[in-house]
Amino acid sequence: MAGFNVRSVLVTGANRGIGLELVKQFLEKSNPPEWVFATCRDPEGERAQQLKNLASRHPNLAIVALEATDPASIKAAATRVEEHLKSSGLNLLINNAGIMRLSTLESETPEDMSLVYATNVTGPLLVSQAFLPLLKKAAQGSPQPGLSCSKAAIVNMSSECGSIANLIALELVQVVSYRCSKASLNMLTKCQSLGYEGDGILSIAVHPGWVQTDMGSTGSHQAPLTVDVSVQGILNVLPTLSKKDNGAFVNWEGKVLPW
Amino acid sequence: MAGFNVRSVLVTGANRGIGLELVKQFLEKSNPPEWVFATCRDPEGERAQQLKNLASRHPNLAIVALEATDPASIKAAATRVEEHLKSSGLNLLINNAGIMRLSTLESETPEDMSLVYATNVTGPLLVSQAFLPLLKKAAQGSPQPGLSCSKAAIVNMSSECGSIANLIALELVQVVSYRCSKASLNMLTKCQSLGYEGDGILSIAVHPGWVQTDMGSTGSHQAPLTVDVSVQGILNVLPTLSKKDNGAFVNWEGKVLPW
Ligand SMILES: NC(=O)c1ccc[n+]([C@@H]2O[C@H](COP(=O)([O-])OP(=O)(O)OC[C@H]3O[C@@H](n4cnc5c(N)ncnc54)[C@H](OP(=O)(O)O)[C@@H]3O)[C@@H](O)[C@H]2O)c1
Ligand SMILES: NC(=O)c1ccc[n+]([C@@H]2O[C@H](COP(=O)([O-])OP(=O)(O)OC[C@H]3O[C@@H](n4cnc5c(N)ncnc54)[C@H](OP(=O)(O)O)[C@@H]3O)[C@@H](O)[C@H]2O)c1
Repeated sequence: MAGFNVRSVLVTGANRGIGLELVKQFLEKSNPPEWVFATCRDPEGERAQQLKNLASRHPNLAIVALEATDPASIKAAATRVEEHLKSSGLNLLINNAGIMRLSTLESETPEDMSLVYATNVTGPLLVSQAFLPLLKKAAQGSPQPGLSCSKAAIVNMSSECGSIANLIALELVQVVSYRCSKASLNMLTKCQSLGYEGDGILSIAVHPGWVQTDMGSTGSHQAPLTVDVSVQGILNVLPTLSKKDNGAFVNWEGKVLPW
Repeated sequence: MAGFNVRSVLVTGANRGIGLELVKQFLEKSNPPEWVFATCRDPEGERAQQLKNLASRHPNLAIVALEATDPASIKAAATRVEEHLKSSGLNLLINNAGIMRLSTLESETPEDMSLVYATNVTGPLLVSQAFLPLLKKAAQGSPQPGLSCSKAAIVNMSSECGSIANLIALELVQVVSYRCSKASLNMLTKCQSLGYEGDGILSIAVHPGWVQTDMGSTGSHQAPLTVDVSVQGILNVLPTLSKKDNGAFVNWEGKVLPW
């Protein structure tokens, strides 16, 4: 992570799981960001306790309310972040918040299809729209040529469950709405990579591995990766990404995954 | 189309465009199906006039109400179709109904994301769930080995706009919500191919080409294909599909498209 000098980063769904660990590891870097924005649904509530403990030790951590299915909440978050950043932009936006519902082809419901899509796809779209001015500002203010995660980037937390090509059996995890949402998020990432390349913004879809979080422990099998190892991997991969990787789908080890 | 003996077929969104032409060409076959079910949102209204004209000449055509975003309407349609079929099953289900909204990454709205997904992805999921018992019955009642469109099949009308791999520029058609929905529909098709193969049901995603319909004429460019040529192509491809094609994404000429 030596060359990874991110001045500001925002992580959604940062109160637990992979999002919380991303925030921790950013704060613990030898050269931590000037600002780490950790968003969660309810900064005042109990679920944000671990973030509040971190904030008491790290003045560069700001906890910001953001509900990914609520456009007004997303816009308010962007306004708050802009106030903190003053005249500088946001380098790295990590769309990490997500949900998964167990479901078979027969049991899948329209309600879950709708909620999972709103959270996992429309959420990242709206968050990216709202923070686009700040990402553009970071890209414009950067002396770096090309594209990179330390200049300006959108990282969408996808899943290998969204790889249509790699799906060879349904039994392991029966999550139809989730698979459909992550395939869609990969498409959104590709659209963003084409739409924002000219603005100096890199867009990437990342599969964090199968990780021991609340979500990763939903099925009957035990997830192999600790959150620590997954996030270390991700933070090793991000600084290696450049223009040639724009719009790709990579895992926590930097391996490219097929759509 | 010589070997294409489909006893019963259902087409959603059959009152205009590709759906209407599919119905016409099925009815005009030298060996037409015993039953062609043409579903549309409002069988009584003006928009169904062309279907009603066809029905007056073809007693094997049944017009059935089906609103793809309404679970109750879908279930009622399945009940009506079952009444017509009596003890036999449904061979071919064509999930054709779909919508597209022009939108850029910046202008895309949560309302359109939600409606396009509900119509283009959740719709086909729910329709497939509702007609699954009839598809299974057709598969069980068939003497044919393996998988085929004349035995039992789900055809999801997808789009090359949903191919993440083939997307190289956004400018041609700015349709973010549509692209995201069709990538998702491809994932659904892959899930269905794995989930229903054991039941003797083939699942396939079909790109009809860029066709001169209301939808195909939405952008500023002129679609190259007539509806006639597109549907002739599709009806030539369907009978060639077998187990090895299960879960694939093919175009109206039978060419496999990448995810
Ligand atoms: N764990 C795995 O094995 C795995 C594998 C592949 C991909 N992923 C992806 O990695 C990301 C993080 O997963 P995780 O394992 O850390 O999941 P997790 O432990 O279940 O945490 C999910 C996080 O997302 C937040 N969130 C959910 N819905 C939200 C909404 N509507 N608005 C705002 N925040 C919301 C949650 O907040 P609350 O506490 O308020 O619910 C929580 O902070 C997800 O996108 C997931 O799909 C995980
Ligand atoms: N045309 C192309 O170039 C092209 C290319 C790739 C893929 N496709 C796909 O091919 C399929 C047919 O397209 P098309 O060009 O024939 O489109 P179209 O001319 O716009 O017709 C769409 C059909 O879908 C129906 N529909 C829309 N929403 C519905 C809902 N909620 N419930 C029930 N029916 C609904 C419409 O009914 P109403 O009349 O009631 O609105 C109409 O019958 C679509 O899935 C489309 O995505 C088309």
